[in-house]
Amino acid sequence: MVNRIFLIVVFIGFPLIVIGSLLQFPSILIFGLSCLTIIGLSSFMGRATESLTIVVGPRIGGLLNATFGNAVELIISIFSLKAGLIGVVLASLTGSVIGNLLLVMGLSFFIGGLKFKRQNFNVFDARHNSGLLMFAVIVAFIIPELFSKNMNDSKTITLSIGVSIIMIILYIAALYFKLVTHRGVYNTKESKQNIKHEEPEWGKGKAILILGIATLAVAFTSEKLVHTFHEVGEKFGWSELFIGVIIVAIVGNAAEHASAVLMAFKDKMDVAVEIAVGSTLQISMFVAPILVIVSLFFPISMPLIFTLPEVIAMATSVLLTIVIVNDGESNWFEGATLLAAYFIMGIGFYLL
Amino acid sequence: MVNRIFLIVVFIGFPLIVIGSLLQFPSILIFGLSCLTIIGLSSFMGRATESLTIVVGPRIGGLLNATFGNAVELIISIFSLKAGLIGVVLASLTGSVIGNLLLVMGLSFFIGGLKFKRQNFNVFDARHNSGLLMFAVIVAFIIPELFSKNMNDSKTITLSIGVSIIMIILYIAALYFKLVTHRGVYNTKESKQNIKHEEPEWGKGKAILILGIATLAVAFTSEKLVHTFHEVGEKFGWSELFIGVIIVAIVGNAAEHASAVLMAFKDKMDVAVEIAVGSTLQISMFVAPILVIVSLFFPISMPLIFTLPEVIAMATSVLLTIVIVNDGESNWFEGATLLAAYFIMGIGFYLL
Amino acid sequence: MVNRIFLIVVFIGFPLIVIGSLLQFPSILIFGLSCLTIIGLSSFMGRATESLTIVVGPRIGGLLNATFGNAVELIISIFSLKAGLIGVVLASLTGSVIGNLLLVMGLSFFIGGLKFKRQNFNVFDARHNSGLLMFAVIVAFIIPELFSKNMNDSKTITLSIGVSIIMIILYIAALYFKLVTHRGVYNTKESKQNIKHEEPEWGKGKAILILGIATLAVAFTSEKLVHTFHEVGEKFGWSELFIGVIIVAIVGNAAEHASAVLMAFKDKMDVAVEIAVGSTLQISMFVAPILVIVSLFFPISMPLIFTLPEVIAMATSVLLTIVIVNDGESNWFEGATLLAAYFIMGIGFYLL
Repeated sequence: MVNRIFLIVVFIGFPLIVIGSLLQFPSILIFGLSCLTIIGLSSFMGRATESLTIVVGPRIGGLLNATFGNAVELIISIFSLKAGLIGVVLASLTGSVIGNLLLVMGLSFFIGGLKFKRQNFNVFDARHNSGLLMFAVIVAFIIPELFSKNMNDSKTITLSIGVSIIMIILYIAALYFKLVTHRGVYNTKESKQNIKHEEPEWGKGKAILILGIATLAVAFTSEKLVHTFHEVGEKFGWSELFIGVIIVAIVGNAAEHASAVLMAFKDKMDVAVEIAVGSTLQISMFVAPILVIVSLFFPISMPLIFTLPEVIAMATSVLLTIVIVNDGESNWFEGATLLAAYFIMGIGFYLL
Repeated sequence: MVNRIFLIVVFIGFPLIVIGSLLQFPSILIFGLSCLTIIGLSSFMGRATESLTIVVGPRIGGLLNATFGNAVELIISIFSLKAGLIGVVLASLTGSVIGNLLLVMGLSFFIGGLKFKRQNFNVFDARHNSGLLMFAVIVAFIIPELFSKNMNDSKTITLSIGVSIIMIILYIAALYFKLVTHRGVYNTKESKQNIKHEEPEWGKGKAILILGIATLAVAFTSEKLVHTFHEVGEKFGWSELFIGVIIVAIVGNAAEHASAVLMAFKDKMDVAVEIAVGSTLQISMFVAPILVIVSLFFPISMPLIFTLPEVIAMATSVLLTIVIVNDGESNWFEGATLLAAYFIMGIGFYLL
Repeated sequence: MVNRIFLIVVFIGFPLIVIGSLLQFPSILIFGLSCLTIIGLSSFMGRATESLTIVVGPRIGGLLNATFGNAVELIISIFSLKAGLIGVVLASLTGSVIGNLLLVMGLSFFIGGLKFKRQNFNVFDARHNSGLLMFAVIVAFIIPELFSKNMNDSKTITLSIGVSIIMIILYIAALYFKLVTHRGVYNTKESKQNIKHEEPEWGKGKAILILGIATLAVAFTSEKLVHTFHEVGEKFGWSELFIGVIIVAIVGNAAEHASAVLMAFKDKMDVAVEIAVGSTLQISMFVAPILVIVSLFFPISMPLIFTLPEVIAMATSVLLTIVIVNDGESNWFEGATLLAAYFIMGIGFYLL
């Protein structure tokens, strides 16, 4: 049912954008259409990646997921970089981090918790992920932020590149740890039973085809979307920061949002938490450093230096999340707490 | 015995304050008398609230506690707001947070630990509270603090109001969670046995009467107390900040201090921790936001913006507390650690 | 084997330094020789302290360890203080903290983890130490840092002395807790079995003699080393900060590094973690405050005020460590995470 809606959205939205960009539709219309179409397309990419993951097995599947899981954000960000909108890129990275940790996980806990009194998830994974969140946000984002205050631009870029390379290496090491050396080591009994023979929705060829076409369509749409930011911001009184942190992040992560909440509602909390936290780690340890390195080939290089409100929002989100997931259990109130934190940050970024 | 001393203090102190304010006693005398009398009165309010809680049952009792548990701080703060002493109000909120977490809990752990080698408390409650402490202090206090640096006054007040409303809603949700949807869900065996048929000290009518009279008397005394701050500060070389963070906080929380330590000494660590942390949460998630909203009706509005030392003191107290209570166990050394942190902050605020 | 190498290093290096300082060898040669000789000497001091600990029993042994465990850092620091190099002292304290937590523990986890899939250590000790790390770094280092921004020099020194005295008292209380009131209370079964009858390597007299001679030799060599910093820094383009944080810290802690990694390789993770975290606590709660007090007798007093990058590096290291050791388990990837954090900080300090 949901899939059919996404199909309709894509098949109406995409042609309209193509026509609209030729006929110079008003920015706000293009903005709205692009957001909806990207959400629809990213659902297709998600399903194609999932099908491929089942076909090729967990190891290569894990790599596929690492690459295509946040492909939409990556594509939007690269077009923003090309347009010189460094502020928007950093803001949308921030938005993905706080959006996944607070909004996606908050909604999952809250809605899952309305149905089930207590929900459990793998506590080993939660702790493993907590360590990585601390590393990625508290160490790798905060250190350049504060060290760069007394540095010139060239040193700041050098530091950013160094940090980015270390993060990418550690991210690959994390995949190797999870998929090779310690695969299944920390599984609880229940999660072992959950590994059933799954049937892929689409065959290998079809999945690759859909993934390819959807990726191209997302790229085209993103390019249109990025160029509407300035006008839309002026019309609604939204700052670039707010567009990046809240709007782009919600559009870019809509697919994750939907599937995480669905999983929570089915009491598959392991999967819901994995989507939210895994996506955060992908963004912060893989997408962000890749963007730093990609930006070296564009006229304006992007240092890994967020604004202070961005870093503080991410750091406090991580600390709150770690304390809340640490016990491997959730309930509706823990979800409400995460959502409340998201609303506070949303108001803050709106007023900035 | 202790109750009789409080009775004497109140019946000597209160008339003296009335006379003293007519005859214009020296400020320092009024200051000392007011502090003692408020401590005595708050003990009566505590006992009356406790009796009422037993009579009306846990649900309405929880609400009563939420309202009257920190009534003294609330009353002192409202009179300070009226006198335009916003700095004192924010300082005394800070003082309540660090006082409850470090001084009250530290003394409880230390003194309880001198008698018992290891003391246990409900680890589920401890973790639930850790999440809320993170939310209240690390998210809801830090975000406005750092976001408001680039905001004008009107946006700062808007942000403060937004954060305050979210906090009050979440605080009410926390009560609903604890008293309705998840009542007793996380109780350990022992804590279930502890729920015995308790006899209220006073009947319903008597308790309400005492609560009403004591509240009025606290209000009267607080008004006198607030107006002595300026002169007392000058005489002793204490800054407004120090008076707020240390003196007002200790006076306003004296009743909690006494009963938490008593509970620890009886090895009822669950109750001792609940008093210390519960009071902190009440102050930060209920009293502080209420004061922000009340201040809108006074000439000077109070934003939820602490000074940097205040926020850092609260944030580091919360982080230290979370790590120390996380295992659901205490000993004298954990108490000593909390007390040492309190002394460090005390020296810091004294020298500021 | 390793011991023989250290013996040769000392017996060749030390005479060369004596000759070199008379004949005015180039600074870089003296610098290199001093570093190697100090590493060799500190291995002798470590073995002598260990022998004495076994002879005199755990109580006095604990005190001995507390005093001589970081004697090398203490000696280098005192000579740096005498030379007025306050920046180097604070930097080397920082370097010891992040070096022990990230480099020593990271290498232990990583190398131990290459051999063993999962390694365990006493979770009670880990949590006890987490509380102390929070106290020492997050409270006792951060509070003076941020409070002193609005203070004059004399108040800053007063605050530093107050904090230092409280830290030393709490450190002694921690020893009392561990060696007297709660000795063995938190031991797991395995760790009880590990307490075997150990034979000291050297007798009492020999150990004291070696400890005395080695300490004197370290003192002499440190004095030479300290005076090469300026020139070496200029030659290699290293800042005083980088020399302190990375070079001095690695030289001063080389002995701990070696023995911690060796213990991890033998799957004695309890000991490896104890060396890394215990050494951090000794540095931050004992060596640092002692240096503050010692500096009062020198021309320039040292306040307990680190630079912002130093404090941030230490604080984020502590948070990362606490999250990673919290489960009482380690694997190669946790080691890699700690090492990655160290490299990020290393690049940061190099570029500052």
